[in-house]
Amino acid sequence: MKPPQVMAFSGDDDIIRIVGHRGARGILPENSIVGFDFALSTGVDLLEFDVLLTADNVPVITHNHEFQGSCVRGPDGDFLKGKAPRVRSLRMEDVQGFDIGRLDGTSDYGRRFPDQAQMDGIRVPRLAELLHLVSQPKYANACLMLELKSDPDSALDPVARAGFVSLVCDEVRGAGLTDRTLLHSFDWTLLAECHRQAPDMPLSFLTQLHDSEDDVGEESSHPVAPDLHQPGISVPDEVSKAGGALWCPHFSEITAHDLARARELGLCVAVWTVNEPADINAMIDLRVDAIVTDYPGRVQRRLSDRGFRWAR
Amino acid sequence: MKPPQVMAFSGDDDIIRIVGHRGARGILPENSIVGFDFALSTGVDLLEFDVLLTADNVPVITHNHEFQGSCVRGPDGDFLKGKAPRVRSLRMEDVQGFDIGRLDGTSDYGRRFPDQAQMDGIRVPRLAELLHLVSQPKYANACLMLELKSDPDSALDPVARAGFVSLVCDEVRGAGLTDRTLLHSFDWTLLAECHRQAPDMPLSFLTQLHDSEDDVGEESSHPVAPDLHQPGISVPDEVSKAGGALWCPHFSEITAHDLARARELGLCVAVWTVNEPADINAMIDLRVDAIVTDYPGRVQRRLSDRGFRWAR
Repeated sequence: MKPPQVMAFSGDDDIIRIVGHRGARGILPENSIVGFDFALSTGVDLLEFDVLLTADNVPVITHNHEFQGSCVRGPDGDFLKGKAPRVRSLRMEDVQGFDIGRLDGTSDYGRRFPDQAQMDGIRVPRLAELLHLVSQPKYANACLMLELKSDPDSALDPVARAGFVSLVCDEVRGAGLTDRTLLHSFDWTLLAECHRQAPDMPLSFLTQLHDSEDDVGEESSHPVAPDLHQPGISVPDEVSKAGGALWCPHFSEITAHDLARARELGLCVAVWTVNEPADINAMIDLRVDAIVTDYPGRVQRRLSDRGFRWAR
Repeated sequence: MKPPQVMAFSGDDDIIRIVGHRGARGILPENSIVGFDFALSTGVDLLEFDVLLTADNVPVITHNHEFQGSCVRGPDGDFLKGKAPRVRSLRMEDVQGFDIGRLDGTSDYGRRFPDQAQMDGIRVPRLAELLHLVSQPKYANACLMLELKSDPDSALDPVARAGFVSLVCDEVRGAGLTDRTLLHSFDWTLLAECHRQAPDMPLSFLTQLHDSEDDVGEESSHPVAPDLHQPGISVPDEVSKAGGALWCPHFSEITAHDLARARELGLCVAVWTVNEPADINAMIDLRVDAIVTDYPGRVQRRLSDRGFRWAR
């Protein structure tokens, strides 16, 4: 029997799951409480998001190690220019001085999300705020794909790694959400540490063999990911050997052959980040378990139009 | 000094207002509480919506006199087929048996909104529910563009007309929202009755000289609108003579000349329904007062990118 949160990400004959990427990045500010609440309120129960530590060891939800000028404004109200502050170097009280409510439309990154609401006074949330949100009875079906972002500066430091994992897992455990959370990363060494400390929380392995143009304006995961480029390697086999419950390839890199192999190995397969209608249709045709998307309403429409559900 | 709700819809040098059309029809089910709440929560303070009466004289928020099969499901869970029920013939308890949470993707209407979230258990709201929502302190800046939908079957009946206006105005007055509400319609006879009964609530005149392909799948307003096709007629002059505070032309029918004339007459000009980026840009170029849109986040992005605000 699979753990409940793995079941929640698993498809079925007429079910393909929808995972709200950073909440609903196409519609609302990414990795914001308002974005998570929106996705959940529309019946998208599965949330993907990114966790880092502040200088004072507070787990916070934000994607990049350095605040991006394209989506972060400083206390002066302007998008950040010049050298970007590192989250790991800021105390929580300083992090709260930044506003993540808008996109800079002149940036490559901003141009990718032309429908995103533009808001003021939106703060980088603590992990604890999201755990509190999903603890409400109305969101009892919510499950979390919690991405631990490995800091390239300390990825090789086992003490830093153990400390990061411990802080994150303690918060999830303290909130009583271990059976609703997946630990998700590109960094397989970090996932091994997760398994050591929290064997009750399933592991979700992100892979991307080649950088994608879809990701312009974002930090690359390659510095912390293992080399999976050897000829003849089977990525799902590697994920399975490493103890994965989920395999999460970039959608452009999945094949019917690898999906079938993943199924033989008992892996659940969630593809990211699928936004264009033709790509959404292609992933439905493949019958992946779950689609990670910035536009959850769009994926609901494609699934609904084709007779699929996303929840039981 | 203009009334406060007219000020709320009026632009300024660096301000163009955003009005959420039926809430945020591009993103969430139209004329639903969840849609109104979404728009307000993103800082879009101005809401457009449609009011009809049930058989037992409850003002409810829904666009068409007959429920559309393309966006209404019956108690059996299926989109309506065959003869559509008239809202005016249904009691409120029966109206609540219908679900407005999804679009039929095979319909012309459904294809227009490919990103709309697909939800279950969403009910046609009473006007009273929206008035309650905007009475919360967090939405103190919200103002309402309340469209009274004239029933072509009874448009010529002065008793029916007076009764409809009375029921609607009583609810707004009872909620203490007369200074945050515009009375809005295509039916100028109905607006005259509004003025007679509620001279403290400003009037907003909708016009559309020609049907638009943009409106496929919707009821036409033409049976209840006055004939404005006479050669040489100035629509803003007619609106002004009829006592309008706002003029609301279809965006494809506004000209710089008519906008200038409306300004001379002291009218506030709100254009509808502007969804495509090129059209949004054109309306910004014209410097209309307000843009009515199904995609409020998209209009926020266009305004923000061009250095405009939508609120003070």
